[in-house]
Amino acid sequence: MTTAYGTIDQTFLNQLHTLTDKDRVSTSKALCEQHGTDESYHKAQAPDVVVFTLSTKEVSDVVKLCAKHKIPVIPYGTGTSLEGHIAALHGGVCIDLSQMDKIVEARPQDMDVTVEAGVTRKALNEYLRDTGLFFPIDPGADASLGGMASTRASGTNAVRYGTMRENVLALTVVTPNGDIVKTASRAKKSAAGYDLTRLYVGAEGTLGIITEVTLRLYGIPETISAAVCPFPGLEEAVNTVISIIQCGIPVARMELLDDRQMYAVNQYSKLDYEVAPTLFFEFHGSPSSVEEQIEMVKSLAEDFGGKNFQWASQLEDRDRLWNARHNAYYAALALRPGCKGVSSDACVPISRLAEAIMATKQDIEDSFLDGTIVGHVGDGNFHTLFAFMPDDEKELAEAKRLNARIVERAIAMDGTCTGEHGIGHGKMKYLESEFGEAGLEIMRSLKKALDPDNIMNPGKIVAL
Amino acid sequence: MTTAYGTIDQTFLNQLHTLTDKDRVSTSKALCEQHGTDESYHKAQAPDVVVFTLSTKEVSDVVKLCAKHKIPVIPYGTGTSLEGHIAALHGGVCIDLSQMDKIVEARPQDMDVTVEAGVTRKALNEYLRDTGLFFPIDPGADASLGGMASTRASGTNAVRYGTMRENVLALTVVTPNGDIVKTASRAKKSAAGYDLTRLYVGAEGTLGIITEVTLRLYGIPETISAAVCPFPGLEEAVNTVISIIQCGIPVARMELLDDRQMYAVNQYSKLDYEVAPTLFFEFHGSPSSVEEQIEMVKSLAEDFGGKNFQWASQLEDRDRLWNARHNAYYAALALRPGCKGVSSDACVPISRLAEAIMATKQDIEDSFLDGTIVGHVGDGNFHTLFAFMPDDEKELAEAKRLNARIVERAIAMDGTCTGEHGIGHGKMKYLESEFGEAGLEIMRSLKKALDPDNIMNPGKIVAL
Repeated sequence: MTTAYGTIDQTFLNQLHTLTDKDRVSTSKALCEQHGTDESYHKAQAPDVVVFTLSTKEVSDVVKLCAKHKIPVIPYGTGTSLEGHIAALHGGVCIDLSQMDKIVEARPQDMDVTVEAGVTRKALNEYLRDTGLFFPIDPGADASLGGMASTRASGTNAVRYGTMRENVLALTVVTPNGDIVKTASRAKKSAAGYDLTRLYVGAEGTLGIITEVTLRLYGIPETISAAVCPFPGLEEAVNTVISIIQCGIPVARMELLDDRQMYAVNQYSKLDYEVAPTLFFEFHGSPSSVEEQIEMVKSLAEDFGGKNFQWASQLEDRDRLWNARHNAYYAALALRPGCKGVSSDACVPISRLAEAIMATKQDIEDSFLDGTIVGHVGDGNFHTLFAFMPDDEKELAEAKRLNARIVERAIAMDGTCTGEHGIGHGKMKYLESEFGEAGLEIMRSLKKALDPDNIMNPGKIVAL
Repeated sequence: MTTAYGTIDQTFLNQLHTLTDKDRVSTSKALCEQHGTDESYHKAQAPDVVVFTLSTKEVSDVVKLCAKHKIPVIPYGTGTSLEGHIAALHGGVCIDLSQMDKIVEARPQDMDVTVEAGVTRKALNEYLRDTGLFFPIDPGADASLGGMASTRASGTNAVRYGTMRENVLALTVVTPNGDIVKTASRAKKSAAGYDLTRLYVGAEGTLGIITEVTLRLYGIPETISAAVCPFPGLEEAVNTVISIIQCGIPVARMELLDDRQMYAVNQYSKLDYEVAPTLFFEFHGSPSSVEEQIEMVKSLAEDFGGKNFQWASQLEDRDRLWNARHNAYYAALALRPGCKGVSSDACVPISRLAEAIMATKQDIEDSFLDGTIVGHVGDGNFHTLFAFMPDDEKELAEAKRLNARIVERAIAMDGTCTGEHGIGHGKMKYLESEFGEAGLEIMRSLKKALDPDNIMNPGKIVAL
């Protein structure tokens, strides 16, 4: 299917101006280019217009206009995605939701909150601070919650608290014809019909635009304790993780950084951790349960040669530790000023994790390109960042080759090509090897049924 | 859309015989009637043929034949659903998956298992016994895991372990044209494309037939302790539950039975519990964590007048306790020999639970019909069983009226018409009030896109 898209001319722009304040519609080249640029290596592609919407109703009005003229619509949160999700491959209108940043309603008694799509994860937790509750999902970037829902994001807490898949209770979505749909009630569970919430979580704006998100919240644990522990080798660190998961110890965070990544983190965050494969831990619970978890983890780590636990129980020490971890991507890029990164995102069953990571390490050693490994290893998910110089096609080709190897290995292990970054247009070629032609055909059917004119973020997830 | 279905004639039956052993195809009246009858009050409706399949391939072959002739296909597990899910409203072929009862592969190292759709929850846990792992989801009936996935079932453990939505890792599905699709890898999380797994979980066989299920497993807790505690009134019991949830105490099970239900349970299971509103608890964890949970729960219960905890720490005492709870539905029916039951299934945000239950209790008191309340109250989910005599239309009308009031109240509280029983054809009329016309239209689009000839369990969830 090739869609003939409409043209964005002055008539269209005039109509757009009637729907919002004039100063919230822009065709400025710089602004459009910025809105077509994410944090990845994929080629930027600017939309023709950017509209800053202030309400679900405005999003609906803009989408209706675009639907009428068959103009592509690309939703934009913070622009921190990594697979070309926001590239305007066919031009069109970028709907920037960052000014939809209101907390609609927090309901501490139900441990849930409804936010506009533009609220970021840090802003939400800032807002919640006095309620004793928090929202755990934390991708590296301070992404918008609408964007996080759209890419089915996760992060360091997912091993204990799940991903956006488990933590979105309901969504408000503007469909491709401009209808406004609430995907679910606030009931904790429901068996009422097709799971519309999970249909849009991870759909990357290709089936509609998420404008509001209702999220589960959690009580801030009575006790939080964090630690860093170096290991003699990568395999020992990974095997410690596997043992911890298989023992069912409910660690809240368990992150792996290889020696090269630790070097980068030290440089970037001005720290002096030992340059060795290292696990970052966090434990949540009552004082006695945290103590119990720590004892068990220490004992398992020691079995694999991990001895020098460095503790951070004070809030500011923990913040420093996790900020260093969250900046790992930027730290690795900073090793080569001016470089860009290709980040892999494989996720495999935990029993295959050591094999997957060791083979990846070997790939890096065999390559002329530098690579760092960092991972949400409790979930079987790890990233390898290959830093390449943007003008060096040989380096980019090598980074892509290595990424492809990692993906193929993950799929062969009954894992996935992406644990949390999503498909965008960067990983579309891997969907068929992961799901087979029949699976891909179902995805195409869903897209065609819900967006027959292919105007919603076209060219992402599935090609029509 | 009205679909003109094909006719099941001798030619069709002959073709069916070529696909399976002859003795696994039956048109016997008694067998067909049994396969159109569930455990609810809804009118039974028999299929024309029942086929007992032995493999995914056979299911695919039968579906392909039915697709060719536009014959309705109704999947059947154990026939224990409650909203007319298996009624052959347009006749057709019932595919009975109960003989697909093999454990395909258990992988203790990954804490997951793949089973054929006909394996029941009890059979799975029996199989797992020596591995130290268990599967927690437990609807009242010993349902098949394919059926449980199809209705997005849950049960008493959901408050701690989630529902089928959270615990299905992947499915094998036969689509309406007979294709065989794997919906996901075994990775614990994935951001790869549309969430096909969650599309089929809860789709009640209307989009395809689930033939294999890959499930998350959990370590059998080191310590398990169960208790029963009576309360002076229903409101005090519910408020205890709300406090426990809001304190974030990770109870594994927390079930409410009202006084009338306790009377029924005593009669049916030959027990001598106090006839009062009662909470059933179970605690999972390490010895110290279980002790900690118990102390906190006891203290909260005492605040609301719940004092006489009766403990069951031995396996056989616990089994007796939970068998009594699982038989609550049958116990309530047994109060009136020959009766049938209309079971409500409302689920509301926890802060509204006391209000919802007290209003329901008032409805029962104001009615000439008897009703019992039982609930997975930690999730905000509760059932009210109205027992009526099958030949008494006035009683049935009253049961339906009461059920409708409960549903409407739940929806007005931003809750759902069904926490775990599903829609079938019994609750279709409530879907629009819950999702609005725009939401329902998306569900219809999904159904039309994936099953354009409307052959898969037609007349359930959405009408075309």
